[in-house]
Parts: sequence; structure tokens; C-alpha cells
Amino acid sequence: MTPDGFPVVGIVGAGQLARMTYQAAIALGVGVRVLAERPDESAARVCPLVDIGSPDSRADLEAFAARCDVVTLDHELVNDEALAAIESAGGLVRPGAHALRYAKDKLHQRTQFAQAGLPVPPFAEVHSAADIDGFAAKHGWPVVVKAQRGGYDGRGVWIVDGSDTAVAIVRDAQARGTALLVEAFVPIERELAVLVARRPGGECVVYPVVETVQRDGICHEVIAPAAVSPEVADEARRIGLRIAELTGVVGIFATELFLTKGHLVINEIATRPHNSGHFSMDACATSQFENHLRAVLDWPLGPTDLLTPSVVMANLLGEDHDSLAPRIPTAVALPGGVHPHLYGKEVRPGRKVGHVNAWGVDAEETRARAVQAAALLTGRTVGAAPGRTS
Amino acid sequence: MTPDGFPVVGIVGAGQLARMTYQAAIALGVGVRVLAERPDESAARVCPLVDIGSPDSRADLEAFAARCDVVTLDHELVNDEALAAIESAGGLVRPGAHALRYAKDKLHQRTQFAQAGLPVPPFAEVHSAADIDGFAAKHGWPVVVKAQRGGYDGRGVWIVDGSDTAVAIVRDAQARGTALLVEAFVPIERELAVLVARRPGGECVVYPVVETVQRDGICHEVIAPAAVSPEVADEARRIGLRIAELTGVVGIFATELFLTKGHLVINEIATRPHNSGHFSMDACATSQFENHLRAVLDWPLGPTDLLTPSVVMANLLGEDHDSLAPRIPTAVALPGGVHPHLYGKEVRPGRKVGHVNAWGVDAEETRARAVQAAALLTGRTVGAAPGRTS
Repeated sequence: MTPDGFPVVGIVGAGQLARMTYQAAIALGVGVRVLAERPDESAARVCPLVDIGSPDSRADLEAFAARCDVVTLDHELVNDEALAAIESAGGLVRPGAHALRYAKDKLHQRTQFAQAGLPVPPFAEVHSAADIDGFAAKHGWPVVVKAQRGGYDGRGVWIVDGSDTAVAIVRDAQARGTALLVEAFVPIERELAVLVARRPGGECVVYPVVETVQRDGICHEVIAPAAVSPEVADEARRIGLRIAELTGVVGIFATELFLTKGHLVINEIATRPHNSGHFSMDACATSQFENHLRAVLDWPLGPTDLLTPSVVMANLLGEDHDSLAPRIPTAVALPGGVHPHLYGKEVRPGRKVGHVNAWGVDAEETRARAVQAAALLTGRTVGAAPGRTS
Repeated sequence: MTPDGFPVVGIVGAGQLARMTYQAAIALGVGVRVLAERPDESAARVCPLVDIGSPDSRADLEAFAARCDVVTLDHELVNDEALAAIESAGGLVRPGAHALRYAKDKLHQRTQFAQAGLPVPPFAEVHSAADIDGFAAKHGWPVVVKAQRGGYDGRGVWIVDGSDTAVAIVRDAQARGTALLVEAFVPIERELAVLVARRPGGECVVYPVVETVQRDGICHEVIAPAAVSPEVADEARRIGLRIAELTGVVGIFATELFLTKGHLVINEIATRPHNSGHFSMDACATSQFENHLRAVLDWPLGPTDLLTPSVVMANLLGEDHDSLAPRIPTAVALPGGVHPHLYGKEVRPGRKVGHVNAWGVDAEETRARAVQAAALLTGRTVGAAPGRTS
């Protein structure tokens, strides 16, 4: 507890999600303690209560949990057995190990989702390259091969167009001890995402459905609301709510969706605050970070409606090794305004070091402004706003 | 500088204004160091860079300034000579001692404002009770007697209705060494406030004019935008901008105004973020705290437009000694939603321990929701929304 009687939320991991959750916690009066691997991590730089330890270490996690009223996560790369043990001993871990497994174990997720009638692509477990060949014989090349666990941001996902590639991928994966699954390739018209926050008793709120613009498996922009039909948006929200019910997740979680031939297919889920929800920080009645805290504390959730007709988030992906600081004045001077959200990380090429939100009435103008601000902040040369990759 | 090359803003004082400025700084990547008198102060509880020292001590202020790229203020009760000395030695103090004097020395402010044609009530310096009598003979009883320096939140202000009271106040003030001035009593229709942020070069942005609802000299609610004629709102903005120009203030500052017989009269100014600007945190394109940071860093200022038709702030004034934490679920469950902003302070009767913002379309409903949330959070019994005091 804090000195003024507020609960302390422990966050395993000290990346930017923990950092932004901490910002929301300050307003709510809630204490935050982060478990960081190094004192220079994003959240550890701004939050006074920092434990140094490993998310793989059961001892570190148990010691950390003992100092917090509830434990939540900045990322999924956490020792599951330790989390389950903390829960068994009566500790509050939100999301718990049960819900987390859906995000960490893709085979489990696909199996459970398919059984529940949720839209997933055809999939199969892979023990050998022959399994991939057999799957492709039924569903056609290319196929998508995925690591069952541990992949993110396009890592651990391979689009495979024939037997030779399949053999090589299976050989490499087996050498690393990586279990695989194979899925039918989904021709993507657009990528969407929907965020849902869920309390322990089942109360949920859903955020406006957004379009995510990906390049090379990395999210570059998020457009809110997504320019899709009301039917598609409703379907996305229904999928998010059904996953909340099925997994029993507590906290905010994101469902990434492919829009293909007018239908939605589930791509991935993440049981934590998510890049696709950063638009909510400047544009929604309650940010994803505040609702995450409210959910894990079992407090009533806040409204999620947009306060502006359009908001676009653009990620800041490093182009060089230079500090962003000298570039801020030019970026924030853009007519109409933008909000930078910087993560306190040294810049490296390709590293996600922040994001910028722009808001406005016209979606195209808003998007162009966000993209331009991101380019100015990272030092990237930009012409017109890049098109969609699909 | 921070490890990733961002400037460090030093804030003298570690109250809630420093705390909320720190929240805005996290997003901008800007470092914040606070000079606190005690480690349990509002901002010192959430910000890792804390120096313990006194705002009265020249040595403490100079040591503090040496560790910061620019120094700004949480409150005005700071050693002026020390600030001036830091500026003379080349340090950046924003607002500087020149602008700060307008907020701290009411006789100086009234004299300068009157010379500049700004609307202030008739006033005079007071050396004896006879000066008050003479002033009242010209302007009528009651008169308003004020401490020239050091008053705030209704302290250091007396409404005096006759010679006997005047004699007593002057005697007490002289015993304490408090210099006084006297002003004509202004019959208040409404109290308004306007916030302006100003960069060193003179660029300014103005926030929507608000109505402040005061009781016993304490601000209880702030209604944005104020329900006044466009002419009155324009006049308020012009006054704010004229004061910015006259004082050369750098940073955000608030001008509190009386609306009397259709005209505006300047009540007070505060050269820092201000309670009357807390509505901006959840409802404006750029909060007062972000624009304060941008101003003192000489970065372009952000747009100040409201993202919602109506927003109302209600202060949380302690009713008892109980933690607010157990009361949050009921308050945030109000239909339509509210945002609590809590200051991490132990609750005491009358102590300002936080505020709550409500936003919506209908001003009356929004106000009722904010007032009800504040009552629920503080444990106060509430019937209808309290009326204005004027």
C-alpha cells in the first residue's frame, strides 16, 4: 500500500507499456512497482519503485509479488510456472496464467478458439516438413508457419511457398527446440485491432475498432476509428468480447484481426496494453492504461468513446542513433498539433522509441500529420503518406 | 540532461502542480527534478529525481539550479533574490524574478497594471488605519484590505466594513510586519479565469475562458467553457495576453477575473500552472502542464481547443482523515464517467487532496456529475449541486 492507503500494482517488465501505465497510475493515486532487468529501462527511468530482477526467475517474481497488491505484465515473456505458483499461493496475478497461455501458446489458442467457434484460419501442429506439405496439399501454398511460442512483431512467423523452404524452416526450428504450427495463408485486405478491458467479475468495455498499418510485420500506424462498415466493426467487437469471456482475462487485451474477403479472422492476441491502443491516450474518455489499472484493481471501467472524430498514431522507429530531443520543436509545431509520447530509450535504427498521436476531423489530414510528425521526430525523409501494404 | 539527451526541468516545490507537470514530462521524454522540503510531498512520491532543500535557501536553490537545464516553480513562495542571482549568473529561471514579482507583490502588480490601462479596482497603499478610512470616504464601505505579499486561497484578504475593523487589522498586520493595500470592493457576478502560456520570444496560446466557483475564498469548481458572452470571453483573453506581454512571463500563468456589471476586473495572477487550468488535462488538445513545459523549454506551444463541449473540474477537499482509495469504485462508476486526479496526500479536513474532471455535452449534467463524484470521493453528503456563491 502507498502511504495514503492506495494499492500498489506490480508490473513485471519495465518497458514503455509499464511507463505509460505508470503515468495513468499517478492520476489515480495508485502505487506502481516495476520489475526491471536493468535500471535504465523505459519505466525504470521514470518510476521510483524499481526492483531489479529477471522475469524468468521464480525467486525474483515471488519476492516481487510479495511487495505488491496485484501483479500485472508489461510483456508476456515471463515464467509461467512462477506466475501460476504465485496465484496458487493466493497472490493476485492479472492476467493470470490461464489467460496468458492463450497469448503465449499459439497452438493452444488456435485449438481453443476453433472449438469455441471463433474465426481462426485452418491450422495444424507441425512435427515434420511432411506435415507442412500435407497441410499445403489441402489448403494450397503459400502457408504460414509459426513458432508455437515466443514470436512477436513478425518474428517467429514465416510465409512458406514450397517444400524446400518448409524443410529448411523445420530443420532450423528443431535445432533450436522451437515447436511449430502451420496455418492457411490469409489474403489480407486490412488489419484491424480491437481492445477490450475486463474486470474479474466479467464487466467489459470495448474500444473503437482501429486499423493497423503494418510494414515488414511491424505496426507503423494505427487509424481510429477504422474506416470499415458498422457490421465489420460490430463483428470485431463481438470477437473481442467472446475472447474475453473464453479466456477469463483480467486487464486490457488486444485482438489483432485480418479483414479478408469481407470477413474477419483472428491473427493474434496480446493480454496486456498494446500498441494498437496508444491512440486512446489523447483521444478517448479513458486511456487503455487507465482501464488496465482499473480492471486489475477490480474497479469499475471507464467509458471508451472517442473525443475527436479521428485520431492516428504513428510509431517512432529509430533511423539513426541521435537523440530525438532536438527534433521535437519542428514536429510539435505542425499546424493542428501532435502529441509525442517518448519512451526514454536511446535511439537505434529500427528500435521503437516512442509514438505520436494526431487528432482531427478529417481522417486523411490527420493521418498525414501523424506520419509527418513521426518522420520529423525520427529524421526520416517523407514524401506523401505511405500507402497500405496490403 | 537525461541519458537519451533530453533537458531536465527543475521544479522548485513538490506539490501537486509539480506532480502533474511530471506526468506531462514523461510523455515528452523530458527529465524532471523536484526540490522538495520533505520526501513525502506530492511530487516527491512519484518522481525519482528529488533534492531535499528549502525554497528559502539561496544555497539550496543554487545547488538545485546547477543540476537542471531550466528552473521553474510549483509555487511562488521562493527566495526572490536567489532566483534573481541564478538568472544573473546565466541560469534559466522561467518564470523569472521580474515576472514573478507581479504575482508576489500585489502593490507592484496593481500599480503596473493600472499604468498599463489594465482593469484593476481603485487601490491605495496602507500605512495606517487612517489610510483605509480615507480610501473608504472616497470609494465607500466595505473595502478590501490585502497583504501586499504572501496571501493565497483567501488568506491575507479581509473585507472591512468600518473604521474599527480597519484599526484592528492594521494593528495586527503591523505587529506581524505585513504591509497592506486597500482596494474598492467589487460586487462579483461571477469569477472567471483565463490561462495563457508564453514562450521566451513572445509566442502565446490562450485557453478557453472558464468560470471558477469559489466558496470561502477556495475554488470548488471550474466550468469550461464559461457561459459568458463572446465579448466577455474575448475581453478576458485580451487581458491575459496583455499581461503576458507586460510581465514577459515565460510558462503558463493564470489570470483570475471578476465579472462585475458586465465588465471584467483583474483579481489575481499566478505565474505557474493553476487550479483553474486542471480541466485541460482531460479535455484540451494540450494540457496546461504540457504547454508549461513546452514554454519553459522554448518549444512551440500546442493547441488549446476543447475536445468536448463541456468539462467541469471539482476539487477534492478533505472531509475527514480517511484514504480516498476505498471510495474510488463508487465515484468512477458514475454514468458518463469521471477522471480522478489524486495528489498522493494524506487526507485532512479542508485539505485539497485531488480533483476530478467530468466531461460531456450538457453543461449542467456535466457539472452535477463532477460535483457528485467529488462528494463520493471525499465522503461528503451532497444534495443538488451547490449554487454559486455570488
